[in-house]
Amino acid sequence: MQQSQNYYLCRMASVKPSVPKGMRDFSPAEMVKRNYIFDTIKSVFRKYGYQQIETPTMENSATLMGKYGDEGDRLIFKVLNSGDYLSDHQLYSQTMRLIANGGNKDSSNADLALNPLSDPIKEDRAQHLLSINQITPRISEKALRYDLTVPFARYVVQHQNEITFPFKRFQVQPVWRADRPQKGRYREFYQCDADVVGSDSLLNEAEFILIYDEALTKLGLTDFTIKINNRKILAGIAEIIGKPELIVDMTVAIDKLDKIGLDGVVNELLTKGFTQEDIDRLEPVILLEGANAEKLDKLKTILASSDIGLKGIAELEVIFTYLQSFSLQKATVELDITLARGLNYYTGAIFEVKTNETYMGSIGGGGRYDDLTGMFGLKGLTGAGISFGADRIYDVLEELKLFPEASNQTTKVLIVPFDSAAEAYALPLLQQLRTSGINAELYPAGAKIKKQLDYANNKNIPYVVVIGSDEVQSGQLTFKNMQSGEQQKVGFGEILEAVK
Amino acid sequence: MQQSQNYYLCRMASVKPSVPKGMRDFSPAEMVKRNYIFDTIKSVFRKYGYQQIETPTMENSATLMGKYGDEGDRLIFKVLNSGDYLSDHQLYSQTMRLIANGGNKDSSNADLALNPLSDPIKEDRAQHLLSINQITPRISEKALRYDLTVPFARYVVQHQNEITFPFKRFQVQPVWRADRPQKGRYREFYQCDADVVGSDSLLNEAEFILIYDEALTKLGLTDFTIKINNRKILAGIAEIIGKPELIVDMTVAIDKLDKIGLDGVVNELLTKGFTQEDIDRLEPVILLEGANAEKLDKLKTILASSDIGLKGIAELEVIFTYLQSFSLQKATVELDITLARGLNYYTGAIFEVKTNETYMGSIGGGGRYDDLTGMFGLKGLTGAGISFGADRIYDVLEELKLFPEASNQTTKVLIVPFDSAAEAYALPLLQQLRTSGINAELYPAGAKIKKQLDYANNKNIPYVVVIGSDEVQSGQLTFKNMQSGEQQKVGFGEILEAVK
Repeated sequence: MQQSQNYYLCRMASVKPSVPKGMRDFSPAEMVKRNYIFDTIKSVFRKYGYQQIETPTMENSATLMGKYGDEGDRLIFKVLNSGDYLSDHQLYSQTMRLIANGGNKDSSNADLALNPLSDPIKEDRAQHLLSINQITPRISEKALRYDLTVPFARYVVQHQNEITFPFKRFQVQPVWRADRPQKGRYREFYQCDADVVGSDSLLNEAEFILIYDEALTKLGLTDFTIKINNRKILAGIAEIIGKPELIVDMTVAIDKLDKIGLDGVVNELLTKGFTQEDIDRLEPVILLEGANAEKLDKLKTILASSDIGLKGIAELEVIFTYLQSFSLQKATVELDITLARGLNYYTGAIFEVKTNETYMGSIGGGGRYDDLTGMFGLKGLTGAGISFGADRIYDVLEELKLFPEASNQTTKVLIVPFDSAAEAYALPLLQQLRTSGINAELYPAGAKIKKQLDYANNKNIPYVVVIGSDEVQSGQLTFKNMQSGEQQKVGFGEILEAVK
Repeated sequence: MQQSQNYYLCRMASVKPSVPKGMRDFSPAEMVKRNYIFDTIKSVFRKYGYQQIETPTMENSATLMGKYGDEGDRLIFKVLNSGDYLSDHQLYSQTMRLIANGGNKDSSNADLALNPLSDPIKEDRAQHLLSINQITPRISEKALRYDLTVPFARYVVQHQNEITFPFKRFQVQPVWRADRPQKGRYREFYQCDADVVGSDSLLNEAEFILIYDEALTKLGLTDFTIKINNRKILAGIAEIIGKPELIVDMTVAIDKLDKIGLDGVVNELLTKGFTQEDIDRLEPVILLEGANAEKLDKLKTILASSDIGLKGIAELEVIFTYLQSFSLQKATVELDITLARGLNYYTGAIFEVKTNETYMGSIGGGGRYDDLTGMFGLKGLTGAGISFGADRIYDVLEELKLFPEASNQTTKVLIVPFDSAAEAYALPLLQQLRTSGINAELYPAGAKIKKQLDYANNKNIPYVVVIGSDEVQSGQLTFKNMQSGEQQKVGFGEILEAVK
């Protein structure tokens, strides 16, 4: 092992310490703000009966692979088996032959997997990559969670006999994706999900809207829209224009209406196999305007001949009826027929949340999926869930200056002693502040007063108590408000009252 | 990619979903208890001016490797590079040659690294492993954090220009170790650390004792001991018996006094190069009894000729003086000359915490280290820190039944409607409960009452409101206390008051 240590130590000397690309440290100031967001959302989840779980950072690769499509699989971080991960003889042979030919661009082909003892053969690049894909699962059996949904499905199946259904769970944990990092896209980021499984009541959907409304209102947003649609309505639309098999292409195209406009959508549809006649029938549907009730009325006429379409409308009506019994705080709920969001996944309601106070794409989304746990062999469990985009919400609150000034997470009072005698005098006062539940610090004696006040400023500590020999004698302490700069001489009792 | 998916899908069908060995799911009930512990400790850290940071799950391997000794390096989980991690030609050749000979137990030797183009050579097992160690850093450049201390040191060096010193930070995040799992030892577990860097004031040490006292008292422990020692005293002892170079062997041996008794310690010392004469001088020191002040007095005599020993005593005296200005709640502080804990790391105070209410080894520990950030090139920053053993504290609280019955993290009221009419009646009441800050749920109409009450029982919901057609007509609702089984008919206003 000495060898490998030296390897790293040699590299280290020249390398400034850093974090892997696409990953972040969070400073104390950032953590206060992030905790504010997460704590707010968690408290609302709990208010609606959702319970927290946590799953391990690593899952068996078999749990994750094949669940996110080819592109997703590629982005999953794989963990190298510990110990001698190349100790398997067959694996040796196979990897050897792969590697022997990896650099060779000749394209003669061969079956690598089945005959590890044959002579090394040449292979082309695609074959090389295919072989990498055969080797990877043998040197890596664990991977980092890619989202919270698949681990949740695994959890439900694994613990089905301990769980009381309907099971309402929330989960706030980081996930990892080997995506190319860019502004606002990280390789490690927190997801913030609430899901219910085992209940088909549309009350769940209505409550998700209440959760968004309450959490975002609590965070200080005053104008945001919760868009809602239903996959069955999209299926109905594809049905009435006679192209049910093109539902995915259709929804992918109309989902872009915001971004590429009507002409763009029409052009895309034409390339995907829709005729001008189809588009003429589609156009009034996707341009539907008016209040939600009006839209639903018009849709009832348009989709009159589609059972599935009418079922989608009926579901939305139940949700809207539920919402009439509740009152929303700041949210606007808008039926948006163009909303699709990962259509292959959702089977009923689809949600997406946008703030109207600044431009920031989606800050949340979700929907109903009828067969979440089927992938692990447990059929027939319906579920629905939502997610908050914590990083984007952070940026919104920052931009709109909505983070609260004061926080119970930071120090409220700093005691600044001139010397050791003042420090000794201050110790019981320090403890009294803390016993009263106040976050308080004493700067150890010996530092210049200026340095101590800088410390208070940099840590955003609102109150400072300065104690020198005069103060020790008189008991009248210098109490300074760091924001206003005001200071006065008062007794400790008064200070205690003021900062409580 | 299809290939690798099929590989996994084939395996999946026969595999019951599970988590990797040594890793855990946390159920809602466990999360409530874990949050209770973490929230309590965090609130105390904050009260003493410590600020939270988070670092990424993955660090560059260069940041971690070589910091934990050979054994530690081996236990670090390494993350496979994403994409074609075997695309480097030289790496191909080298890995090929390694693999070609990996299964061969012949022990002829060769330089693998320097001449990748020579004919494949035979190598023995040790050579094989050495070569694995050369390949690993080339197919894996990132690794999972092994503790919170090294990432913290990296953080301090990387962000030194943004940080105000003294920097008091706490961090509560999981770490990963590829250790053999066993009872109470996991491959993923949370660490819970507070450290200060850039202050040599012994007030920090005194405050760590206050933090332990306050946090563990808050958690309900009533009898626990904070043991304290000082590395300089251990150095002084090694010095006065004339074996300063054997300080590590000496402390490793006397650290086991609790477990193997005096005879065991003496035998170990004899095998490590200590003479009977050394041991005769050592024995009275390690068997030192009495109050802390008495022990210090005796040590002053014993270590009179050792400057470093006397310095250690002086430091302890300052800490004890600080503690006289504060009052401790439930902790006993005990000077324990046999306490060592990772001696090579600490340079001043050493702490360890044990509960006396049940047998559970150490539930916390820490100390002062003079050169934490030196490993990343920033010299001369002194630091001190402590850690809480969250998993062990969990087991202690469970055993002593100290977890609180009620929690604001769970649902307080479940509304149980007989039918849709009752459900509709209940919706505004549900919202009123929530508006009053009460965690409340409504079980969607349609389920049998028995099932709904089971749901309340299984979720530990203390209050249930049953609403049928009678209740809708009279406005007198059936209000049931699930613990006592009592139920009465009351108006909603009364219910609201009762559960607040």
